[in-house]
Amino acid sequence: MGSVSGKTVAHSVTEMTELVLPNDSNTLGNILGGRVMHLIDLAAAITCARHAGHVAVTASMDSVDFRHPIRVGQVIHLQARLNWVGSTSMEVEVKVFCEDLSEGTHVLTSTAYLTFVALDTDGRPVEVPPLVLTTPDEERRFREAQQRRAERLQRRSPAPS
Amino acid sequence: MGSVSGKTVAHSVTEMTELVLPNDSNTLGNILGGRVMHLIDLAAAITCARHAGHVAVTASMDSVDFRHPIRVGQVIHLQARLNWVGSTSMEVEVKVFCEDLSEGTHVLTSTAYLTFVALDTDGRPVEVPPLVLTTPDEERRFREAQQRRAERLQRRSPAPS
Amino acid sequence: MGSVSGKTVAHSVTEMTELVLPNDSNTLGNILGGRVMHLIDLAAAITCARHAGHVAVTASMDSVDFRHPIRVGQVIHLQARLNWVGSTSMEVEVKVFCEDLSEGTHVLTSTAYLTFVALDTDGRPVEVPPLVLTTPDEERRFREAQQRRAERLQRRSPAPS
Amino acid sequence: MGSVSGKTVAHSVTEMTELVLPNDSNTLGNILGGRVMHLIDLAAAITCARHAGHVAVTASMDSVDFRHPIRVGQVIHLQARLNWVGSTSMEVEVKVFCEDLSEGTHVLTSTAYLTFVALDTDGRPVEVPPLVLTTPDEERRFREAQQRRAERLQRRSPAPS
Amino acid sequence: MGSVSGKTVAHSVTEMTELVLPNDSNTLGNILGGRVMHLIDLAAAITCARHAGHVAVTASMDSVDFRHPIRVGQVIHLQARLNWVGSTSMEVEVKVFCEDLSEGTHVLTSTAYLTFVALDTDGRPVEVPPLVLTTPDEERRFREAQQRRAERLQRRSPAPS
Amino acid sequence: MGSVSGKTVAHSVTEMTELVLPNDSNTLGNILGGRVMHLIDLAAAITCARHAGHVAVTASMDSVDFRHPIRVGQVIHLQARLNWVGSTSMEVEVKVFCEDLSEGTHVLTSTAYLTFVALDTDGRPVEVPPLVLTTPDEERRFREAQQRRAERLQRRSPAPS
Repeated sequence: MGSVSGKTVAHSVTEMTELVLPNDSNTLGNILGGRVMHLIDLAAAITCARHAGHVAVTASMDSVDFRHPIRVGQVIHLQARLNWVGSTSMEVEVKVFCEDLSEGTHVLTSTAYLTFVALDTDGRPVEVPPLVLTTPDEERRFREAQQRRAERLQRRSPAPS
Repeated sequence: MGSVSGKTVAHSVTEMTELVLPNDSNTLGNILGGRVMHLIDLAAAITCARHAGHVAVTASMDSVDFRHPIRVGQVIHLQARLNWVGSTSMEVEVKVFCEDLSEGTHVLTSTAYLTFVALDTDGRPVEVPPLVLTTPDEERRFREAQQRRAERLQRRSPAPS
Repeated sequence: MGSVSGKTVAHSVTEMTELVLPNDSNTLGNILGGRVMHLIDLAAAITCARHAGHVAVTASMDSVDFRHPIRVGQVIHLQARLNWVGSTSMEVEVKVFCEDLSEGTHVLTSTAYLTFVALDTDGRPVEVPPLVLTTPDEERRFREAQQRRAERLQRRSPAPS
Repeated sequence: MGSVSGKTVAHSVTEMTELVLPNDSNTLGNILGGRVMHLIDLAAAITCARHAGHVAVTASMDSVDFRHPIRVGQVIHLQARLNWVGSTSMEVEVKVFCEDLSEGTHVLTSTAYLTFVALDTDGRPVEVPPLVLTTPDEERRFREAQQRRAERLQRRSPAPS
Repeated sequence: MGSVSGKTVAHSVTEMTELVLPNDSNTLGNILGGRVMHLIDLAAAITCARHAGHVAVTASMDSVDFRHPIRVGQVIHLQARLNWVGSTSMEVEVKVFCEDLSEGTHVLTSTAYLTFVALDTDGRPVEVPPLVLTTPDEERRFREAQQRRAERLQRRSPAPS
Repeated sequence: MGSVSGKTVAHSVTEMTELVLPNDSNTLGNILGGRVMHLIDLAAAITCARHAGHVAVTASMDSVDFRHPIRVGQVIHLQARLNWVGSTSMEVEVKVFCEDLSEGTHVLTSTAYLTFVALDTDGRPVEVPPLVLTTPDEERRFREAQQRRAERLQRRSPAPS
């Protein structure tokens, strides 16, 4: 990627905040898991496009757990940040928090890792800027993402039926 | 679960078919990954509630790949079926197909495995009927789901940061 | 239509399954009739486009009754199939079922007959493949659809005010 | 209905105006027929509830034709009015116009007749006020609606398969 | 504007009527102010495009008060009319009413004044027809709108931070 | 408000980030002003509820300008913060930015000031915690908000027609 100037992790961090509305929920008043995944993917897509300067599409999402119910009237808060950048693909981490405005609580409910690929206007993969790492924490995250990437490539080799 | 009469896999199979609309897509006209995940979760939730006879909520989704773009004007087709049933939780498999109505093509784009928990009207986990297996293929899927479940429990022990 | 090879009825059968969400309903918690009609039209449009290999637009819907209320949290299940195919138009039949996941009931609530016209990319009517009939039931449906078509053409002659 | 004071036709006339958005349309940019039906039903439901003073639910819609395409960026304009009122049911007529804001055209595209039933808060049919007819045109419409009602009752007797 | 023929105020008056649905509301069942603003802007945009014969975009909205809560199941009714037309911009007034269908009440909840600019297909401001005033009330509204316009221009000069 | 412990401005700052989708736009591909107002109100409502610990409803929005078009595929970014808090009402400021992911630009397009009132579960105004000011900038904003409040009260006295 030679002369392409890189971008920091901070450059593309994305914060999303959404009020949970009745249509997002089941008959118990809990948000549907699919609505959470939808928001995770949107936050991740914005982070990747901010870094790439191009539209980025979802290639995969690692396994994700939903640890606490989120209810109508509560707030869902998402933070997305890049961990790793390759030639045309990126790993983005999204943390999901459930916030209760009456009780003042703010609880981590899910952590997701997604891989996106940047595309040019013809829909072909396009090179992305390098990720400039500025702290030991960012370096650790980069290494851990490389490990997850290796596991993903291995996982994929026997194509799922 | 003693005298509770079981239900077959076929009893709760769910088919969903959706036209991809402009708002589901990015500026290249490709469906957003999060919209696909949203539909995967809905199909899975209906299958689990059909089996359980209770609302069922998403506990986790295993890693999922998006192998082919799906475009505005194409059709997204989902098939959800139970692989495994425990005391209060269920594993459901969802296959996602992209169908082009002009070209007559029908391509598998994703396979997802989700775990749901059935809840009573107070939101507490509730026992679900046993899964009646009627073919060798269903028995194989049940065993493979048990293996995935063991991996999930192991994966979860060191709590994600 | 000479050498154009036909397609069977089974080729374009469409199954749709939707969870009824709060926004689909009135203040009594019953689904709005217009939401049901919306889904009927979508299922029919997919069936017609599957057969035609072209976008198909709604020309008319015969009278339709709503026999049972469908409620938030229940599932609406639709089955669409072609009964008749002409040069550029098609009759599609849509059956609507209300499914209660707790009670395990599955009730027919409406049957609708719609006429669609296939359009090319310039929006002009385009010839559609013949419908290959493979059972006596399909042949009976084809004849009944011809009868309904004759009644529709007669009905339309004195243009509605 | 003895001492219940009636309401005029004018009292419950409803006007709706909607901009056609991309998500309402197919890939040719034409509004989906189901979206039009959805709006027809909403306009009719408001008119019936205005007259009844209760929630009213769709019992049936007579056959409806879609005579002209309506396109994204155009305006869809609906007028709903009561033609006939019985003990607990009402016939409402909805006219649909397509308006092109650049060309200044305003074209009738559909006329629909729907039957609604008023419900109390327990979901049971409830008596509605008489319809006060004030012009010969309203009297003619009332008689024509009675004729359509007779045809509907006859049509329904051999229950649809 | 020389030979361009003008249009009357009545020509572009817009009536909108919407049922308030669960997703429009907060957990108390009151409509969100932002949903009301959304509808105000849509009614105004249609009125301006009807007059201009071109797409019109929102340049500003004057301060607006929300005087009464509007609840799920009630009807929101909007009336939009032009007060003033300049070379490429227009002032439109939108009145918002809350209608309770059970109680038969119809209450003014907000009055908003918006400024729109007409755009050609390249997105550049385009001249609009003169507004033909036919009553003393329309002339008074025109003068009051000129006064508000002067205040808006003054308000804008020290650019907001 | 005696012994009620206050909350800082920072405590309730809200960041929202949204991808502009086709359905948010007019036929030129520009976001509708009403969609921006909808998001402004949501961000403000979350900030006020975070401070109050109760649902808060929109009482008014001051005049707002839309200085730059925002287009489909761009990102709309909102920052909401409290300026002033009274007994049961609050002034919240929302800044709206348009972000172009390809060009890397981030432009202020609107600044809005809204007044919200906190409500208890019966829908009655409820006392809110004091606003703890920690910087000279926050003190200046508080004073400016008091001035705007005085102007609002004056503006409202001759009730709008």
